[in-house]
Amino acid sequence: MTSNAWILSLGTELTLGQSVDTNSAWLSHRLAELGIRCERHVTVADDLLATRDLLRDAAARAVIVLVTGGLGPTDDDLTRQALADAAGQPLVEDAASLEQMREFFAARNRAMPDRNRVRALRPAAARAIPNSVGTAPGIRLELGSAVIYALPGVPFEMRTMFDEFVRPELAARGGGAVLLARRIRCYGSTESEIGERIADLMTRGRNPEVGTTAELGEIGIRIYASGDSPAQAEALLDRDEAEIRERLGRVVYGRESDTLAGVVGELLAARGQTLATAESCTGGMVSTLLTDVSGSSRYYLGGVVAYDNRVKLGVLGVRSETIAEHGAVSAAGCREMADGARARLAADYVLATTGIAGPTGGSAAKPVGLVYVGLAHAGGTIVRELHLGAASPRDSIRVRASRGALNLLRLHLLE
Amino acid sequence: MTSNAWILSLGTELTLGQSVDTNSAWLSHRLAELGIRCERHVTVADDLLATRDLLRDAAARAVIVLVTGGLGPTDDDLTRQALADAAGQPLVEDAASLEQMREFFAARNRAMPDRNRVRALRPAAARAIPNSVGTAPGIRLELGSAVIYALPGVPFEMRTMFDEFVRPELAARGGGAVLLARRIRCYGSTESEIGERIADLMTRGRNPEVGTTAELGEIGIRIYASGDSPAQAEALLDRDEAEIRERLGRVVYGRESDTLAGVVGELLAARGQTLATAESCTGGMVSTLLTDVSGSSRYYLGGVVAYDNRVKLGVLGVRSETIAEHGAVSAAGCREMADGARARLAADYVLATTGIAGPTGGSAAKPVGLVYVGLAHAGGTIVRELHLGAASPRDSIRVRASRGALNLLRLHLLE
Repeated sequence: MTSNAWILSLGTELTLGQSVDTNSAWLSHRLAELGIRCERHVTVADDLLATRDLLRDAAARAVIVLVTGGLGPTDDDLTRQALADAAGQPLVEDAASLEQMREFFAARNRAMPDRNRVRALRPAAARAIPNSVGTAPGIRLELGSAVIYALPGVPFEMRTMFDEFVRPELAARGGGAVLLARRIRCYGSTESEIGERIADLMTRGRNPEVGTTAELGEIGIRIYASGDSPAQAEALLDRDEAEIRERLGRVVYGRESDTLAGVVGELLAARGQTLATAESCTGGMVSTLLTDVSGSSRYYLGGVVAYDNRVKLGVLGVRSETIAEHGAVSAAGCREMADGARARLAADYVLATTGIAGPTGGSAAKPVGLVYVGLAHAGGTIVRELHLGAASPRDSIRVRASRGALNLLRLHLLE
Repeated sequence: MTSNAWILSLGTELTLGQSVDTNSAWLSHRLAELGIRCERHVTVADDLLATRDLLRDAAARAVIVLVTGGLGPTDDDLTRQALADAAGQPLVEDAASLEQMREFFAARNRAMPDRNRVRALRPAAARAIPNSVGTAPGIRLELGSAVIYALPGVPFEMRTMFDEFVRPELAARGGGAVLLARRIRCYGSTESEIGERIADLMTRGRNPEVGTTAELGEIGIRIYASGDSPAQAEALLDRDEAEIRERLGRVVYGRESDTLAGVVGELLAARGQTLATAESCTGGMVSTLLTDVSGSSRYYLGGVVAYDNRVKLGVLGVRSETIAEHGAVSAAGCREMADGARARLAADYVLATTGIAGPTGGSAAKPVGLVYVGLAHAGGTIVRELHLGAASPRDSIRVRASRGALNLLRLHLLE
């Protein structure tokens, strides 16, 4: 039989609308993968009685209760006390947690502030959930027939603790019908074009269910397959993924948490080739995306952020005549940035960007959203003109320009 | 007396984690502006009985209930039926809504699909909420002493209908005490240290309420003030902000949506000075943060991402003896990166970073999380050693290193 779950998130910043709760969606997704049905998300303000009552209600109506938030060191962090009150247990200090926190601060050459000590408290019959990436432990408490896992609200701590502690415990319970998800990642086409090419797979009620999402030029295809076993659901996912890859070809660049930068990096590493960058409008974002990938030093040498024209001229060797005649935002300017960086940094490939990220600086001839991305390599230099929308926000233009540059190299390496 | 509200969002895509609910945060914010306290957000899957029971529970415990989602034309859109069941009323067809929907399709030269007709249904004693920007009307239903407003889940339609219909009605109720929020942003201290210095302001039940949050080295202080008028609440916020700034001094770097990069940029622009960067472990992130700010070309010249040692040597002029003797991740290496970039890019200030972002590449002597940030200026070069945690994720180390570098310059400019 399938276990049911509730997810609770605690914090006045959430009920006041100061922050958006992304933890509940992330946790729901993980539960679905484990075959556990999430029935409800509840968010309440920092209020001891309301939180205690909610914990009791959740434990009476769900067998798994996940809680995020309220584990900080300050007076508005009420999760510990609310759990103790809900269970009718006193709070006790967890010696191992206290030791772990002291070590956390010691590793940073700092004494642990006294106030932090409250974070080692837990209800007497509860267990601490270790936090390998931050200070505060979580709390595992059995209440009636339910088990409650309280985790920090900081997403990366919450996710790490879920993966390291909660997920293995839940997986060991065994579940019921399994719902597995897969994400296929695409670049270089639109959501409607892709939707047309896989329309028959997207019929409602079909198993797997297939849906698309679009985010800053990247199209995601999500596949949800249900089956009696992980192997059965996995097989359905594999079948749909193969079909989608067959239909979309090189538009598909990866799956799950793949990134364009990571995929490009693997292609370069496999060839033993190197890459450098010369960025203007993206201001270091292409470089940041590349170096987000651990191990990128195998193929990424570095680059120049030539934001000011003086850097384009002085460091990259763009000619002043080119800027006078065509402007810095031009195909010719982009080409000289790429070529100049390739000569100076001695890389096999150079990606260059120049454009108008806005919101100011646009003109009729060169509107906001006009971006040139260039690729210099031993066989020559390619420049592409992108139109990313005069009304688009600055950040959106920069992200799509950066992704466009990476995709240019990806397609070239696949040729 | 303050009215209280619950916000309900309906949809299996939410409890499965396929979508993040942003509507509840948006609505909470609007309610706070109207002086209505949102106590709870609840999200449930598409399930008729669960939704009916939730509506009854919410109407018994809140005087205002906002519902989003479940108003579409398909079988999993259950809000209409759940409202009718909760109120014990039959569903009837709303003639005006039907006419409005027909006009909506006619204006697009299309016949209304028959399936769409269900969207004109409402409980007998309810009223339709007009939708000026889409097909489906909303529903306003009084249940016991509560009033329920059901709106579509599509954010643009939901927001428009709230602004055009719900907000004026709620404003006319007069509520209320107004609840206003402010956020103070801090860098260079810890949540516990800050918590100790403003502990008396964080006493529960005080007005304003003050709370702290921590995210990758940045500490946020949120102040919530209630008052009979916006002016009164504003004055309370001003008073607490002044007190907090007095106590924390330069640890406070801004408020609301300020960023370290933006604040540093304003300081530079005010002096007419320029900045360049020389990045290794942050791989372009300092530069990306700086150029996220529109207008950053006034003071940011650009920089060098010296990821590979060849770029440190060849472009920045770091000496090979320095790397042989101390390693690229060293105070000496950082200093030469900063000085080299300052000589080559002719900027008033240069920020440099070098470190071990992990997860691999650490050693006993130089563990993951060891980062040097440097600042070169006309008066000399400063280098700081940071310990950002050997178990911290790569991205967290890079973000905190980048922020640490920006904060180094901020503090220098404030001296």
